[in-house]
Amino acid sequence: MPKAPTLPARPHVVIVGGGFAGLACARALGGAEIDVTVIDRRNHNLFQPLLYQVATAALSPADIAEPIRDALGRHRNIAVLLAEVIAIDHEGRFVLTDRLPPLAYDRLVLASGSDYSYFGKDHWRALAPGLKTIREARVIRQRLLMAFEQAEATRDSEAKARLLTSVIIGGGPTGVEMAGAMVDLGRFMAAHDHRNISPRDTRVLLVEAGPRLLPAFPEDLAAYAEQRLRRLGVEVMTGVAVEAMSEGEVVVAGGRSIPAGTIVWAAGTKATPAAQWLGIEPEKGGRIAVSPYLEVPERQGVYVLGDLAHLQDPASGEVLPGLAQVAKQQGRWLGRALRRLAETGERGAPFRFRSRGNTAVIGRNAAIFDFGRWHLKGRFAWVLWAVVHVVLLVSFEKRLLVSLQWIWRYMTGKRSARLIDEPVDLAPPADPKSRQTDRHESGGGFARQRGRQGT
Amino acid sequence: MPKAPTLPARPHVVIVGGGFAGLACARALGGAEIDVTVIDRRNHNLFQPLLYQVATAALSPADIAEPIRDALGRHRNIAVLLAEVIAIDHEGRFVLTDRLPPLAYDRLVLASGSDYSYFGKDHWRALAPGLKTIREARVIRQRLLMAFEQAEATRDSEAKARLLTSVIIGGGPTGVEMAGAMVDLGRFMAAHDHRNISPRDTRVLLVEAGPRLLPAFPEDLAAYAEQRLRRLGVEVMTGVAVEAMSEGEVVVAGGRSIPAGTIVWAAGTKATPAAQWLGIEPEKGGRIAVSPYLEVPERQGVYVLGDLAHLQDPASGEVLPGLAQVAKQQGRWLGRALRRLAETGERGAPFRFRSRGNTAVIGRNAAIFDFGRWHLKGRFAWVLWAVVHVVLLVSFEKRLLVSLQWIWRYMTGKRSARLIDEPVDLAPPADPKSRQTDRHESGGGFARQRGRQGT
Repeated sequence: MPKAPTLPARPHVVIVGGGFAGLACARALGGAEIDVTVIDRRNHNLFQPLLYQVATAALSPADIAEPIRDALGRHRNIAVLLAEVIAIDHEGRFVLTDRLPPLAYDRLVLASGSDYSYFGKDHWRALAPGLKTIREARVIRQRLLMAFEQAEATRDSEAKARLLTSVIIGGGPTGVEMAGAMVDLGRFMAAHDHRNISPRDTRVLLVEAGPRLLPAFPEDLAAYAEQRLRRLGVEVMTGVAVEAMSEGEVVVAGGRSIPAGTIVWAAGTKATPAAQWLGIEPEKGGRIAVSPYLEVPERQGVYVLGDLAHLQDPASGEVLPGLAQVAKQQGRWLGRALRRLAETGERGAPFRFRSRGNTAVIGRNAAIFDFGRWHLKGRFAWVLWAVVHVVLLVSFEKRLLVSLQWIWRYMTGKRSARLIDEPVDLAPPADPKSRQTDRHESGGGFARQRGRQGT
Repeated sequence: MPKAPTLPARPHVVIVGGGFAGLACARALGGAEIDVTVIDRRNHNLFQPLLYQVATAALSPADIAEPIRDALGRHRNIAVLLAEVIAIDHEGRFVLTDRLPPLAYDRLVLASGSDYSYFGKDHWRALAPGLKTIREARVIRQRLLMAFEQAEATRDSEAKARLLTSVIIGGGPTGVEMAGAMVDLGRFMAAHDHRNISPRDTRVLLVEAGPRLLPAFPEDLAAYAEQRLRRLGVEVMTGVAVEAMSEGEVVVAGGRSIPAGTIVWAAGTKATPAAQWLGIEPEKGGRIAVSPYLEVPERQGVYVLGDLAHLQDPASGEVLPGLAQVAKQQGRWLGRALRRLAETGERGAPFRFRSRGNTAVIGRNAAIFDFGRWHLKGRFAWVLWAVVHVVLLVSFEKRLLVSLQWIWRYMTGKRSARLIDEPVDLAPPADPKSRQTDRHESGGGFARQRGRQGT
């Protein structure tokens, strides 16, 4: 059968981004008569749905990160390069990066994903890290644990209350899961680890600007999640926008100030600037509109996957959401399509998303599942959630270890990754005033607490 | 029985340092009629003998770090505080820290351990990190992995040779173990992970200023270790001192320059400045001379443990070395002694060290053991080493997980913690000249490599 006229003899496919979409595409091209180069600015693919467990000290970064070279090492036709894309010359068919010579391509796959959007207030990023990278998760973990350490040592009850208050901004799945995990962490640490902190001292607030939590879920499941979070002790605030932020403080609608030791951002996301690289007008959130073949209509030979792609689902009529399952299915589909094109010259059927259901977990023992017509919630949903996530980790070498840690933690309540590194990566948002008060308090504050005055 | 006159009714014991010595002492005081406060600037005890495995991406930091609160949480008479000691007022019996009110004590236990000594050249520390903290191990891991990434992408053979050369300074057990692990890592990464790196491209040099490796071991075992390292491909240089160091370069005796991508310091150590806190003259290496009861003769009620203590072993006549087993035995002995003193007023027998044997591991399948009269080496010693280390991790909650990872890695050769975070904690020691050459090379350097010129 003749080769397709549009694809040269041994084409070079460049994939930008080694996340779920990019890796699935590369894997599907493994061993084909195609040269593949994967470029990523990080050397690992992150299992983001579990990143909140790193931020709350339940898992280690390496537990949910898979080196890209590990995932693709056995395919000799695939090269991996660590670099950040800065521009694309589609006329000349070159990708330009921050550190490599220009990289020529025959076909370009853009799968660089999304980042948090701070709605133009980029200085909020340092105050309220999101949950997209290992570094951010480590910063949150560091701040949470340092806040508890400072609260344990302080005798200033106002500072203590602030340190033990965590505010999560954004009521989507990440915010909900983070809130549940933070309650769990706070209770465990208060009960086992600290002498001067009681579970009643810890507060978790979940602030959502929209009218309800989990807008992507059906109303009954969202209502269940909210009720469940409230029962766990989370203060859920819906219809409340954040107006300002500073170190140790969140100001919400109406000027109400919430002193906070740890602030986490789980609100809006935006696509990485790939539309800019291509010089085309993006859709909402910076996404790039693609054909049902995942190709950019204005840029032949350029494909877009995952969080970056703007594609209407013909079944539901809605734009496909930024979920791991969408990214993986698109990546696998495109890899197979390119392979088929190279091998037989045939184009095949367009991409079709098959929903595996949408899920979120709420603390221990509760989760929700939306399977379209079926809704599932409660303890059984939690068990299903755990099973699903172990299966999803299937391509991660350490799924066994992660499962063991889960079981272990479930039985003991212990958090295995409770490490504070030195020096602190980013200064915790401490109130300098209250700290000074601590330090200048008349000598022997702690000694008094022990019932002694230094002789 | 009457209380000892020297100890008040419910004495307060302050332990500075939550390493092996401090933790063993605190554990032995758990549940006693004594208030105990453990101060550490870190929140975890580190299993330092395995830190080189974190630096070479085989284990995650949390695998070998135990939160101090975890270790002591169940003892209600023990408080843990995160702070750095800055001074001691032994007249007033107060410990002064960087962030807490002065802390009164009846008995003071100093177990703050040791740090690397750069022989006065403190600017070497940033160029050649040691292996004492998680942060240092992470910096070394980052540099090693980044050097391989840069070597994979460069077309400059000189830069590539430099990037793939690692220099370890210091031929004690840490240096020897690190050298073996680095060879292992380099071979695995060259064979599985990278396309443009062959095992022959990677070099590991072990530089020791003294006449032979492992001066603390008998000559036959040290000779075996050296021969074994050479067979692994390590270039062992004994009797060679380091004269100078700069980014990407080590200059050894005679002015010979060794271009290096990664430099690791495993040479001299020195005690933390506890002698200074007490205002007494230290022994060699900053250690503090103690009586057989581990007390400082000039400072009644102050005890010194582990790497910080200068104590002659009555059996061998030699000063006890800075080993985990010494630290643990001293800590346990002192905890029991203080407890006995409080409960019965009796002083008991002085401390006596019982050697469990001295060991070092050399890559895969080889280790050495020195049991005094018995010497053990080879594969059986390696198995024994592995068993001993699993047993030593006995107080670490995750010994099961660590063992599983070892077995897994042994079978597959895989390194599970091969993560490069973003942004890089410390800049890798890259040669700016060679980088620029890369970038300014005529367009399509990589494309040519693929047999293509950008159209």
